[in-house]
Amino acid sequence: MAFKVIEKNILKASEDTANENREVLRHNNVFTVNIISSPGAGKTSLIERVGPVLKEEGVPFTVITGDCFTTRDAERIDVLKIPVIQINTGNACHINGQLIKAALKDVDLTKMDLLIIENVGNLVCPAQFDLGEDTKIALFSVPEGDDKPVKYPLIIKQSRLALINKMDLLEHSDFDVSFCEESIKKINPGIETLLISCKKDEGLDGFISWVKENIKIKKERNR
Amino acid sequence: MAFKVIEKNILKASEDTANENREVLRHNNVFTVNIISSPGAGKTSLIERVGPVLKEEGVPFTVITGDCFTTRDAERIDVLKIPVIQINTGNACHINGQLIKAALKDVDLTKMDLLIIENVGNLVCPAQFDLGEDTKIALFSVPEGDDKPVKYPLIIKQSRLALINKMDLLEHSDFDVSFCEESIKKINPGIETLLISCKKDEGLDGFISWVKENIKIKKERNR
Repeated sequence: MAFKVIEKNILKASEDTANENREVLRHNNVFTVNIISSPGAGKTSLIERVGPVLKEEGVPFTVITGDCFTTRDAERIDVLKIPVIQINTGNACHINGQLIKAALKDVDLTKMDLLIIENVGNLVCPAQFDLGEDTKIALFSVPEGDDKPVKYPLIIKQSRLALINKMDLLEHSDFDVSFCEESIKKINPGIETLLISCKKDEGLDGFISWVKENIKIKKERNR
Repeated sequence: MAFKVIEKNILKASEDTANENREVLRHNNVFTVNIISSPGAGKTSLIERVGPVLKEEGVPFTVITGDCFTTRDAERIDVLKIPVIQINTGNACHINGQLIKAALKDVDLTKMDLLIIENVGNLVCPAQFDLGEDTKIALFSVPEGDDKPVKYPLIIKQSRLALINKMDLLEHSDFDVSFCEESIKKINPGIETLLISCKKDEGLDGFISWVKENIKIKKERNR
């Protein structure tokens, strides 16, 4: 019984920190996304592809990337001269609000329109943690199979956008796009879904428009 | 500081249950594997492929499959007339020893040579939990990328066998097999690695031999 109480305290502390982060990000008009996927679904590839475009279009942004032990993802992003902060979680399976709070101390929020958080590769735990973001983004990929939304519904419920990556592998798989999209809509009717291929640079315009539109909406709302 | 102590207590209880499970499985000569992978890497497909062969060859076995909410995996195995027990973990990201202990009450261990545990799709947390198994099996797949062993080393350290699945997609990917195999060996020099394709039924003979050999070794050791 004692454990339950402790857990609640941890979750409460976590919620408080998420709210602090949200307030700081709101105050500075920074639209913040928390990208969640399985290992290897393409979170870093997505940032590698859209990062340079956003930069070219003058959108000031920073990336916070989470990984248990390595700095591989941050290195891939750093090489593109995109500002990036690596969070190593050790054996922990998700980024929490405290880690984001610490990371935010190292960036100048007044000069940013967008914060992209790349969570640890894991569809279960990261979905349960509020970091203070505007929305989570659920990223799936074709080779994982079309039943992943059904099996991991929480992340869909928490997201305004679902991306289905590696569409280039569709012809080599029995992935049913309609079934996958319908299961996503059934779990969260308000969600938008985009089919993309980071490898072939397909469908990413839609993602970039979505990001820019949301930056605009956040700024207008805060006016 | 109090949290640490509680955590230790939970881990201790978990360890005790794992040891109880291990003793029961040892007493009954049941070789037990705990298969861990990312979502959609092919745990259920592996069981679908090798299950019928093991059955045909007269190896008595049971499958325990873990998933957060659905019974999809158990249904896929049940249709092949393979005894299967579904564990639903809710929002929990791994199977623990207590859940296995409960599941073991529903099977006749005296009539089994092999127990296959299919863990929740997650490379982080399941690696940290001892269920009382003889060994974990790390299952990776080509589309996830060749850097997954480097990024998730704990599961490699805990496994005697690593499987690299979806080799049929190798030609459509930049996956470097040598790099992946070398990283696995660097983390755990004693581990065996097998390249497989559940889709094309390739390399699975090697897995079946490995299982049968280990069943034999366990029986001889207990004599």
